Amino acid sequence: MRPVLPSVPLQHAYRLLNHGPTVLVGSAHEGRTNVMAAAWAMPLDFEPPKLAVVIDKSTLTRQWVDATGMLSINVPCQAQAGLTWALGNESGKTHPDKLSRLGVRTTPAPLTGMPLVEGCIAQMECRVLPATTHVAGPHDLFLVEVLGAWADSRVFSHGRWHFEHAPDDLRTIHHVAGGHFYTIGSPRSAA
Amino acid sequence: MRPVLPSVPLQHAYRLLNHGPTVLVGSAHEGRTNVMAAAWAMPLDFEPPKLAVVIDKSTLTRQWVDATGMLSINVPCQAQAGLTWALGNESGKTHPDKLSRLGVRTTPAPLTGMPLVEGCIAQMECRVLPATTHVAGPHDLFLVEVLGAWADSRVFSHGRWHFEHAPDDLRTIHHVAGGHFYTIGSPRSAA
Repeated sequence: MRPVLPSVPLQHAYRLLNHGPTVLVGSAHEGRTNVMAAAWAMPLDFEPPKLAVVIDKSTLTRQWVDATGMLSINVPCQAQAGLTWALGNESGKTHPDKLSRLGVRTTPAPLTGMPLVEGCIAQMECRVLPATTHVAGPHDLFLVEVLGAWADSRVFSHGRWHFEHAPDDLRTIHHVAGGHFYTIGSPRSAA
Repeated sequence: MRPVLPSVPLQHAYRLLNHGPTVLVGSAHEGRTNVMAAAWAMPLDFEPPKLAVVIDKSTLTRQWVDATGMLSINVPCQAQAGLTWALGNESGKTHPDKLSRLGVRTTPAPLTGMPLVEGCIAQMECRVLPATTHVAGPHDLFLVEVLGAWADSRVFSHGRWHFEHAPDDLRTIHHVAGGHFYTIGSPRSAA
Protein backbone atom coordinates (compact mmCIF):
# COMPACT_ATOMS: atom_id res chain seq x y z
CA MET A 1 0.00 0.00 0.00
CA ARG A 2 1.30 3.46 -0.92
CA PRO A 3 -0.24 6.87 -0.23
CA VAL A 4 -2.72 7.70 -2.96
CA LEU A 5 -2.06 11.45 -3.09
CA PRO A 6 1.04 13.05 -4.66
CA SER A 7 3.82 13.78 -2.19
CA VAL A 8 4.55 17.34 -1.04
CA PRO A 9 8.22 18.41 -0.67
CA LEU A 10 8.94 18.68 3.05
CA GLN A 11 9.89 22.37 2.79
CA HIS A 12 6.30 23.10 1.72
CA ALA A 13 4.58 20.90 4.31
CA TYR A 14 3.97 23.79 6.75
CA ARG A 15 1.81 25.47 4.12
CA LEU A 16 -0.76 22.69 4.41
CA LEU A 17 -1.75 24.16 7.82
CA ASN A 18 -0.64 27.78 7.40
CA HIS A 19 -4.21 29.05 6.82
CA GLY A 20 -5.59 27.38 9.95
CA PRO A 21 -7.85 24.50 8.88
CA THR A 22 -9.42 22.01 11.26
CA VAL A 23 -7.56 18.68 11.08
CA LEU A 24 -7.99 14.97 11.78
CA VAL A 25 -5.41 13.32 14.04
CA GLY A 26 -4.72 9.67 13.22
CA SER A 27 -3.10 7.17 15.56
CA ALA A 28 -2.47 3.43 15.68
CA HIS A 29 -1.51 1.01 18.44
CA GLU A 30 -1.44 -2.75 18.77
CA GLY A 31 -3.14 -3.32 15.45
CA ARG A 32 -5.95 -0.83 16.01
CA THR A 33 -6.49 2.52 14.28
CA ASN A 34 -8.19 5.70 15.51
CA VAL A 35 -8.99 9.15 14.12
CA MET A 36 -10.16 12.24 16.01
CA ALA A 37 -10.89 15.84 14.97
CA ALA A 38 -8.81 18.75 16.27
CA ALA A 39 -9.26 22.44 15.59
CA TRP A 40 -6.13 23.42 17.51
CA ALA A 41 -3.22 22.68 15.20
CA MET A 42 -0.70 24.96 13.52
CA PRO A 43 2.77 25.05 11.93
CA LEU A 44 5.73 25.41 14.27
CA ASP A 45 8.71 25.49 11.90
CA PHE A 46 9.58 25.51 8.21
CA GLU A 47 12.35 22.97 7.60
CA PRO A 48 12.45 20.41 8.92
CA PRO A 49 8.70 21.00 9.12
CA LYS A 50 7.21 20.90 12.60
CA LEU A 51 3.64 21.27 13.85
CA ALA A 52 1.92 21.92 17.18
CA VAL A 53 -1.37 20.21 18.06
CA VAL A 54 -3.49 20.02 21.21
CA ILE A 55 -4.61 16.48 22.16
CA ASP A 56 -6.81 16.24 25.24
CA LYS A 57 -5.89 13.85 28.05
CA SER A 58 -9.31 12.20 27.94
CA THR A 59 -8.93 10.84 24.39
CA LEU A 60 -7.91 7.42 23.12
CA THR A 61 -5.69 9.22 20.62
CA ARG A 62 -3.75 10.68 23.53
CA GLN A 63 -3.14 7.25 25.07
CA TRP A 64 -1.87 5.87 21.79
CA VAL A 65 0.29 8.89 20.87
CA ASP A 66 1.80 8.78 24.35
CA ALA A 67 2.52 5.07 23.78
CA THR A 68 3.93 5.25 20.24
CA GLY A 69 5.32 8.80 19.84
CA MET A 70 3.76 8.97 16.38
CA LEU A 71 0.61 10.37 14.75
CA SER A 72 -0.79 11.58 11.45
CA ILE A 73 -2.32 14.97 10.67
CA ASN A 74 -4.92 15.00 7.90
CA VAL A 75 -6.76 17.98 6.41
CA PRO A 76 -10.43 17.18 5.76
CA CYS A 77 -12.49 19.00 3.13
CA GLN A 78 -16.03 20.35 3.02
CA ALA A 79 -17.38 17.01 1.80
CA GLN A 80 -16.14 15.58 5.12
CA ALA A 81 -17.62 18.22 7.46
CA GLY A 82 -20.21 15.84 8.90
CA LEU A 83 -17.61 13.11 9.27
CA THR A 84 -15.20 15.52 10.97
CA TRP A 85 -17.84 16.54 13.48
CA ALA A 86 -18.70 12.89 14.19
CA LEU A 87 -15.03 11.95 14.63
CA GLY A 88 -14.67 14.76 17.13
CA ASN A 89 -17.69 13.72 19.16
CA GLU A 90 -17.39 9.95 19.41
CA SER A 91 -14.49 8.66 21.45
CA GLY A 92 -12.65 5.58 20.30
CA LYS A 93 -12.84 4.48 23.93
CA THR A 94 -16.62 4.21 24.04
CA HIS A 95 -17.12 3.65 20.29
CA PRO A 96 -14.36 1.19 19.29
CA ASP A 97 -16.10 0.58 15.95
CA LYS A 98 -16.40 4.26 15.05
CA LEU A 99 -14.13 4.19 12.01
CA SER A 100 -15.86 1.27 10.33
CA ARG A 101 -19.32 2.58 11.20
CA LEU A 102 -18.51 6.05 9.86
CA GLY A 103 -16.95 4.55 6.73
CA VAL A 104 -13.47 5.94 7.41
CA ARG A 105 -10.76 4.24 5.35
CA THR A 106 -7.08 4.75 6.03
CA THR A 107 -3.74 3.84 4.45
CA PRO A 108 -0.69 3.23 6.67
CA ALA A 109 1.98 5.88 6.12
CA PRO A 110 5.26 4.49 4.75
CA LEU A 111 7.65 5.46 7.56
CA THR A 112 5.49 5.29 10.68
CA GLY A 113 2.46 3.19 9.75
CA MET A 114 0.24 6.00 11.05
CA PRO A 115 -3.19 6.12 9.33
CA LEU A 116 -3.55 8.52 6.39
CA VAL A 117 -7.26 9.27 6.09
CA GLU A 118 -8.69 8.70 2.61
CA GLY A 119 -10.70 11.56 1.11
CA CYS A 120 -8.68 14.16 2.99
CA ILE A 121 -6.98 16.79 0.80
CA ALA A 122 -3.70 16.65 2.74
CA GLN A 123 -2.01 14.04 4.93
CA MET A 124 1.17 14.10 7.01
CA GLU A 125 2.93 11.45 9.07
CA CYS A 126 4.70 12.80 12.16
CA ARG A 127 6.83 11.87 15.15
CA VAL A 128 6.56 13.53 18.57
CA LEU A 129 9.46 15.86 19.49
CA PRO A 130 11.27 15.65 22.85
CA ALA A 131 10.16 19.15 23.95
CA THR A 132 6.61 17.79 24.15
CA THR A 133 7.53 16.36 27.56
CA HIS A 134 7.36 19.85 29.05
CA VAL A 135 4.03 20.94 27.54
CA ALA A 136 1.93 17.77 27.14
CA GLY A 137 1.37 17.37 30.87
CA PRO A 138 0.33 20.91 31.75
CA HIS A 139 -1.15 21.98 28.40
CA ASP A 140 -2.00 18.85 26.33
CA LEU A 141 0.28 20.33 23.67
CA PHE A 142 2.20 18.09 21.26
CA LEU A 143 5.10 19.26 19.12
CA VAL A 144 5.80 17.00 16.16
CA GLU A 145 8.11 16.76 13.16
CA VAL A 146 6.57 16.01 9.77
CA LEU A 147 8.31 13.03 8.15
CA GLY A 148 6.15 12.73 5.05
CA ALA A 149 3.43 14.85 3.41
CA TRP A 150 0.90 14.36 0.63
CA ALA A 151 -1.80 16.58 -0.88
CA ASP A 152 -4.57 16.49 -3.47
CA SER A 153 -3.20 18.12 -6.63
CA ARG A 154 -6.66 19.44 -7.53
CA VAL A 155 -6.31 21.96 -4.66
CA PHE A 156 -2.59 21.99 -3.73
CA SER A 157 0.16 22.28 -6.34
CA HIS A 158 3.52 24.02 -6.74
CA GLY A 159 3.61 24.51 -2.96
CA ARG A 160 0.30 26.43 -2.81
CA TRP A 161 -3.37 25.89 -2.12
CA HIS A 162 -5.60 26.74 -5.13
CA PHE A 163 -9.14 26.24 -3.86
CA GLU A 164 -10.69 28.59 -6.41
CA HIS A 165 -9.94 26.22 -9.29
CA ALA A 166 -11.65 23.14 -7.83
CA PRO A 167 -15.09 22.03 -6.65
CA ASP A 168 -16.24 23.71 -3.41
CA ASP A 169 -16.43 20.27 -1.76
CA LEU A 170 -12.61 20.27 -1.70
CA ARG A 171 -12.27 23.46 0.37
CA THR A 172 -10.84 23.27 3.88
CA ILE A 173 -13.18 23.62 6.85
CA HIS A 174 -12.55 25.80 9.89
CA HIS A 175 -14.49 24.96 13.04
CA VAL A 176 -15.99 27.86 14.97
CA ALA A 177 -18.09 26.12 17.63
CA GLY A 178 -20.63 23.35 18.17
CA GLY A 179 -20.45 21.70 14.75
CA HIS A 180 -20.51 25.00 12.86
CA PHE A 181 -17.70 25.45 10.37
CA TYR A 182 -16.71 28.05 7.83
CA THR A 183 -15.21 26.88 4.57
CA ILE A 184 -12.17 28.74 3.29
CA GLY A 185 -13.20 31.55 0.97
CA SER A 186 -11.71 33.72 -1.76
CA PRO A 187 -8.09 34.55 -2.57
CA ARG A 188 -6.89 38.01 -1.54
CA SER A 189 -3.42 39.06 -2.61
CA ALA A 190 -1.59 41.71 -0.62
CA ALA A 191 1.92 41.25 -2.01
CA MET B 1 -8.64 55.41 27.00
CA ARG B 2 -10.87 52.35 26.92
CA PRO B 3 -11.10 49.60 24.30
CA VAL B 4 -13.51 50.67 21.57
CA LEU B 5 -14.95 47.22 20.83
CA PRO B 6 -17.44 45.38 23.08
CA SER B 7 -15.83 42.97 25.51
CA VAL B 8 -16.03 39.19 24.97
CA PRO B 9 -16.64 36.93 28.00
CA LEU B 10 -13.38 35.12 28.73
CA GLN B 11 -14.95 31.68 28.27
CA HIS B 12 -15.60 32.58 24.63
CA ALA B 13 -12.19 34.12 23.93
CA TYR B 14 -10.74 30.91 22.40
CA ARG B 15 -13.39 31.10 19.69
CA LEU B 16 -11.79 34.25 18.31
CA LEU B 17 -8.93 32.06 16.98
CA ASN B 18 -10.67 28.68 16.69
CA HIS B 19 -11.03 28.93 12.91
CA GLY B 20 -7.35 29.71 12.35
CA PRO B 21 -7.06 33.36 11.22
CA THR B 22 -3.76 35.17 10.75
CA VAL B 23 -3.16 37.56 13.67
CA LEU B 24 -1.26 40.69 14.62
CA VAL B 25 0.96 40.47 17.72
CA GLY B 26 1.25 43.73 19.65
CA SER B 27 3.98 44.57 22.13
CA ALA B 28 5.19 47.59 24.08
CA HIS B 29 8.38 48.39 25.96
CA GLU B 30 9.92 51.55 27.40
CA GLY B 31 7.28 53.79 25.88
CA ARG B 32 7.46 52.33 22.39
CA THR B 33 4.87 50.19 20.61
CA ASN B 34 5.27 47.52 17.92
CA VAL B 35 2.97 45.26 15.90
CA MET B 36 3.93 42.25 13.76
CA ALA B 37 1.94 39.73 11.75
CA ALA B 38 1.85 36.03 12.70
CA ALA B 39 0.11 33.19 10.92
CA TRP B 40 1.05 30.63 13.55
CA ALA B 41 -1.34 31.18 16.45
CA MET B 42 -4.05 28.95 17.91
CA PRO B 43 -6.14 28.34 21.04
CA LEU B 44 -4.56 26.21 23.76
CA ASP B 45 -7.29 26.04 26.42
CA PHE B 46 -10.87 27.08 27.07
CA GLU B 47 -11.08 28.62 30.54
CA PRO B 48 -9.03 30.35 31.59
CA PRO B 49 -8.42 30.97 27.91
CA LYS B 50 -4.91 30.29 26.70
CA LEU B 51 -3.27 30.67 23.29
CA ALA B 52 -0.10 29.46 21.60
CA VAL B 53 1.81 31.70 19.18
CA VAL B 54 5.16 31.41 17.40
CA ILE B 55 7.36 34.52 17.66
CA ASP B 56 10.68 34.33 15.81
CA LYS B 57 13.90 35.13 17.66
CA SER B 58 14.91 37.71 15.05
CA THR B 59 11.98 40.05 15.75
CA LEU B 60 11.73 43.17 17.87
CA THR B 61 8.45 41.78 19.19
CA ARG B 62 10.37 38.82 20.59
CA GLN B 63 12.82 41.07 22.45
CA TRP B 64 10.01 43.05 24.01
CA VAL B 65 7.82 40.05 24.89
CA ASP B 66 10.85 38.40 26.50
CA ALA B 67 11.38 41.61 28.49
CA THR B 68 7.80 42.29 29.58
CA GLY B 69 6.05 38.89 29.58
CA MET B 70 3.04 40.50 27.92
CA LEU B 71 1.58 40.87 24.43
CA SER B 72 -1.64 41.45 22.54
CA ILE B 73 -3.21 39.25 19.86
CA ASN B 74 -5.36 41.06 17.32
CA VAL B 75 -7.42 39.60 14.48
CA PRO B 76 -7.17 41.71 11.31
CA CYS B 77 -9.86 41.73 8.64
CA GLN B 78 -9.82 41.72 4.86
CA ALA B 79 -9.68 45.52 4.75
CA GLN B 80 -6.32 45.19 6.55
CA ALA B 81 -4.75 42.51 4.32
CA GLY B 82 -2.20 44.90 2.82
CA LEU B 83 -1.42 46.32 6.24
CA THR B 84 -1.00 42.82 7.69
CA TRP B 85 1.43 41.87 4.95
CA ALA B 86 3.42 45.09 5.48
CA LEU B 87 3.53 44.58 9.27
CA GLY B 88 4.89 41.08 8.70
CA ASN B 89 7.62 42.22 6.35
CA GLU B 90 9.01 45.35 7.97
CA SER B 91 10.86 44.80 11.22
CA GLY B 92 10.48 47.33 13.99
CA LYS B 93 14.25 47.05 14.36
CA THR B 94 15.07 48.46 10.93
CA HIS B 95 11.84 50.47 10.52
CA PRO B 96 11.26 52.08 13.93
CA ASP B 97 8.62 54.37 12.39
CA LYS B 98 6.64 51.58 10.76
CA LEU B 99 3.45 52.00 12.79
CA SER B 100 3.14 55.73 12.15
CA ARG B 101 4.09 55.39 8.50
CA LEU B 102 1.56 52.58 7.96
CA GLY B 103 -1.12 54.52 9.83
CA VAL B 104 -1.50 51.94 12.61
CA ARG B 105 -3.32 53.29 15.64
CA THR B 106 -3.46 51.42 18.93
CA THR B 107 -5.18 51.69 22.30
CA PRO B 108 -3.43 50.45 25.46
CA ALA B 109 -5.25 47.46 26.97
CA PRO B 110 -6.61 48.12 30.47
CA LEU B 111 -4.67 45.48 32.46
CA THR B 112 -1.37 45.22 30.64
CA GLY B 113 -1.07 48.36 28.52
CA MET B 114 -0.39 46.16 25.50
CA PRO B 115 -1.46 47.77 22.19
CA LEU B 116 -4.92 46.83 20.87
CA VAL B 117 -4.84 47.50 17.13
CA GLU B 118 -7.65 49.71 15.86
CA GLY B 119 -9.64 48.39 12.92
CA CYS B 120 -9.07 44.78 13.94
CA ILE B 121 -12.23 42.73 14.48
CA ALA B 122 -10.92 41.09 17.66
CA GLN B 123 -8.33 42.05 20.27
CA MET B 124 -6.92 40.21 23.30
CA GLU B 125 -4.43 41.22 25.97
CA CYS B 126 -2.29 38.36 27.26
CA ARG B 127 0.45 37.40 29.69
CA VAL B 128 3.14 34.80 28.99
CA LEU B 129 2.78 31.50 30.90
CA PRO B 130 5.67 29.88 32.80
CA ALA B 131 5.75 26.78 30.54
CA THR B 132 6.97 29.04 27.73
CA THR B 133 10.45 28.76 29.24
CA HIS B 134 10.73 25.21 27.87
CA VAL B 135 9.53 25.90 24.32
CA ALA B 136 10.53 29.49 23.50
CA GLY B 137 14.23 28.67 23.28
CA PRO B 138 14.07 25.58 21.06
CA HIS B 139 10.85 26.35 19.16
CA ASP B 140 10.07 30.11 19.41
CA LEU B 141 6.75 29.04 20.90
CA PHE B 142 4.91 31.25 23.41
CA LEU B 143 2.04 30.06 25.59
CA VAL B 144 -0.10 32.89 26.93
CA GLU B 145 -3.18 33.43 29.06
CA VAL B 146 -5.86 35.80 27.75
CA LEU B 147 -6.69 38.44 30.38
CA GLY B 148 -9.14 40.51 28.35
CA ALA B 149 -10.90 40.12 24.99
CA TRP B 150 -12.90 42.37 22.69
CA ALA B 151 -14.58 41.84 19.32
CA ASP B 152 -16.51 43.76 16.67
CA SER B 153 -20.21 43.02 17.23
CA ARG B 154 -20.90 43.31 13.50
CA VAL B 155 -19.12 39.96 13.03
CA PHE B 156 -18.87 38.38 16.52
CA SER B 157 -21.84 38.19 18.87
CA HIS B 158 -23.32 35.72 21.37
CA GLY B 159 -19.98 33.90 21.43
CA ARG B 160 -19.90 33.23 17.67
CA TRP B 161 -18.49 34.65 14.46
CA HIS B 162 -21.20 35.72 11.97
CA PHE B 163 -19.28 36.83 8.89
CA GLU B 164 -22.14 36.20 6.50
CA HIS B 165 -24.21 39.06 7.91
CA ALA B 166 -21.58 41.78 7.50
CA PRO B 167 -19.53 43.43 4.73
CA ASP B 168 -16.86 41.17 3.21
CA ASP B 169 -14.20 43.66 4.32
CA LEU B 170 -14.77 42.39 7.89
CA ARG B 171 -13.92 38.76 7.13
CA THR B 172 -10.82 37.19 8.68
CA ILE B 173 -7.78 36.57 6.48
CA HIS B 174 -5.74 33.36 6.41
CA HIS B 175 -2.21 33.58 5.04
CA VAL B 176 -1.14 30.82 2.66
CA ALA B 177 2.26 32.07 1.44
CA GLY B 178 4.07 35.12 0.09
CA GLY B 179 1.39 37.73 0.71
CA HIS B 180 -1.42 35.56 -0.61
CA PHE B 181 -4.35 35.16 1.76
CA TYR B 182 -7.72 33.48 1.65
CA THR B 183 -10.62 35.20 3.34
CA ILE B 184 -12.91 33.04 5.46
CA GLY B 185 -15.83 31.77 3.38
CA SER B 186 -19.31 30.36 3.89
CA PRO B 187 -20.93 28.74 6.93
CA ARG B 188 -21.27 24.97 6.84
CA SER B 189 -23.19 23.31 9.66
CA ALA B 190 -22.49 19.67 10.49
CA ALA B 191 -24.17 19.44 13.88
